[in-house]
Amino acid sequence: MSTANIASVNHQVRLARRPKGMPVAEDWSFTEEPVSSVADGGVLVQTLSLSLDPAMRGWMNEGKSYIPPVGLGEVMRAGGVGRVAASAHPAFAVGDMVYGTLGVQEYALIPKEAVARSGLAKIDLAAGSVGQWLNVLGMPGMTAYFGLMDIGLPLPGQTLVVSGAAGAVGQTVGQLAKIKGCRVVGIAGGAAKCDWVVKELGFDACIDYKAGEAAVREGLKAHCPQGVDIYFDNVGGDILDAVLARLARGARIIICGAISQYNNTTPVQGPKNYLSLLVHRASMKGMVVFDYADRYPQAVAELSGYLRDGRMTSREDVVDGGVAAFPDALLRLFEGKNFGKLILKVAD
Amino acid sequence: MSTANIASVNHQVRLARRPKGMPVAEDWSFTEEPVSSVADGGVLVQTLSLSLDPAMRGWMNEGKSYIPPVGLGEVMRAGGVGRVAASAHPAFAVGDMVYGTLGVQEYALIPKEAVARSGLAKIDLAAGSVGQWLNVLGMPGMTAYFGLMDIGLPLPGQTLVVSGAAGAVGQTVGQLAKIKGCRVVGIAGGAAKCDWVVKELGFDACIDYKAGEAAVREGLKAHCPQGVDIYFDNVGGDILDAVLARLARGARIIICGAISQYNNTTPVQGPKNYLSLLVHRASMKGMVVFDYADRYPQAVAELSGYLRDGRMTSREDVVDGGVAAFPDALLRLFEGKNFGKLILKVAD
Repeated sequence: MSTANIASVNHQVRLARRPKGMPVAEDWSFTEEPVSSVADGGVLVQTLSLSLDPAMRGWMNEGKSYIPPVGLGEVMRAGGVGRVAASAHPAFAVGDMVYGTLGVQEYALIPKEAVARSGLAKIDLAAGSVGQWLNVLGMPGMTAYFGLMDIGLPLPGQTLVVSGAAGAVGQTVGQLAKIKGCRVVGIAGGAAKCDWVVKELGFDACIDYKAGEAAVREGLKAHCPQGVDIYFDNVGGDILDAVLARLARGARIIICGAISQYNNTTPVQGPKNYLSLLVHRASMKGMVVFDYADRYPQAVAELSGYLRDGRMTSREDVVDGGVAAFPDALLRLFEGKNFGKLILKVAD
Repeated sequence: MSTANIASVNHQVRLARRPKGMPVAEDWSFTEEPVSSVADGGVLVQTLSLSLDPAMRGWMNEGKSYIPPVGLGEVMRAGGVGRVAASAHPAFAVGDMVYGTLGVQEYALIPKEAVARSGLAKIDLAAGSVGQWLNVLGMPGMTAYFGLMDIGLPLPGQTLVVSGAAGAVGQTVGQLAKIKGCRVVGIAGGAAKCDWVVKELGFDACIDYKAGEAAVREGLKAHCPQGVDIYFDNVGGDILDAVLARLARGARIIICGAISQYNNTTPVQGPKNYLSLLVHRASMKGMVVFDYADRYPQAVAELSGYLRDGRMTSREDVVDGGVAAFPDALLRLFEGKNFGKLILKVAD
């Protein structure tokens, strides 16, 4: 067993209550624990940066989903990049940079039997920065890659629309679709994001949904004159309905998420234009990135190649406040305030 | 050119007005015309039986769909079986039994250039009765066959649910799925239909949706303990939502129709449980039977084989009132009053 300099106290954020609608301060509790020492086969990881994701809102709800909910009183689940601080596991040495489900805490003690479940894996900072390992090379990038390639089935010349275009998944979906030869139209909130999506990411157009429902409808009509062949949906709600009304024959819709609906206190808004699937012989398919875990290395290799050769770029929005800043930082996602992949920096 | 005994007057039903909600008497007009004689290459068909289909309601609406709407003042579109009464076309002789888009009229004059478009084709009454040629061997059967086989992808041991189970499409979907080795659960309206579906068609269970939403939910839970692998949806609305809540991983939903929504005067009810597609990695795909036209012969051969060897049966609900009975007969579909494939008998 080897160790490094380790703090004595581990600050943690726990789920205190199941939120109704948008999470509030009372839904969280803050705890301190002594930093544990590793037992046989375990790994102690110091958290450096945590990934803040829309999916976290779903994990806070009770009930069956694609993953069990976070239990009341448990440390909030979060993926992150860290540095191995102590190891009794043969595959990890002190100082190794790793990705895994670390949780919203400064130190994650991962027992031997939980190493696989937490997805703990060494990462190579030559392939991408810490931020990129939580973005293009992390879950959002994997989601973009397999959703687009396995469900979207992009063909050169086809038109792809992606919502949340400036967000973590959207930025990679659109850039990858451009590389695959598609015409790419983003939907994002505000002129600054739309400008960046077109000028920096190279999308063919970007529609500002904050300009209103009519602007979204008109924008889709103007920028997708042949209809939409692929829609990568991160938001649901009215935007999903607007795209359904513009499908091309044989269109594929990837249901990746529905951030517009996650904090509803009323039932989810179902897509009232879903019969467009019939008219246009189109399909709508859901995906969960974890199903593709055995193919992550292939996607990481391809995407890191694009980062290296300059065909792809990325943007991270880093909140530098330690774990105590987690509750407020998370809300930025649901308010559309993040610009790029939202990351919470916990340590250097 | 050959001719047979032909009446002098052709009675027709035309679309006079676009319905709002359920069609009413004022939406139709009744006309009489002299029966035309055939010009070079044309065919005159005497209508024997017409197919009454939920899709007709969509054809009455303005606006783009998978097929142009029926124009105001035009004879209402309908598929039917008829007998060639006069022919100047080399492929058809007087007395031939044919299927085609005949319209709600006693005689259909099909000019040479419209023969292909109307789908006019000779039928063999040794393969099935006139009623069966409008049911199992006609559009409903083709819809059932290609929807199930091409989109549903049935595997032995999997659970299929079909709504409108006693209807034209549903009866063939369920029987074919049984032949392919699936566990089959129907949803139909009323005890009589449910009894027939289980006892005569051999479904494993049938849920009576008229017993209420809770009964549908409980029925799905009881009869689909491993979840629903394939849902063939003819109805939409609350039943679609109830099935979405019971999907098995990797489920396929075939969107064939949504009879519960066709007469809405409010927006279509979107499936509020659509995010179940994500949780269960499931897909929802629309279909239009006309896309499979070049493969109809294959399906007819297979299905008529099952009718002959007794592995499949069919039920037609024949209204015997001539074309004047069309408006009232059509409403039986939307009121769920038909028991089996609804057919309007026009002549012997």
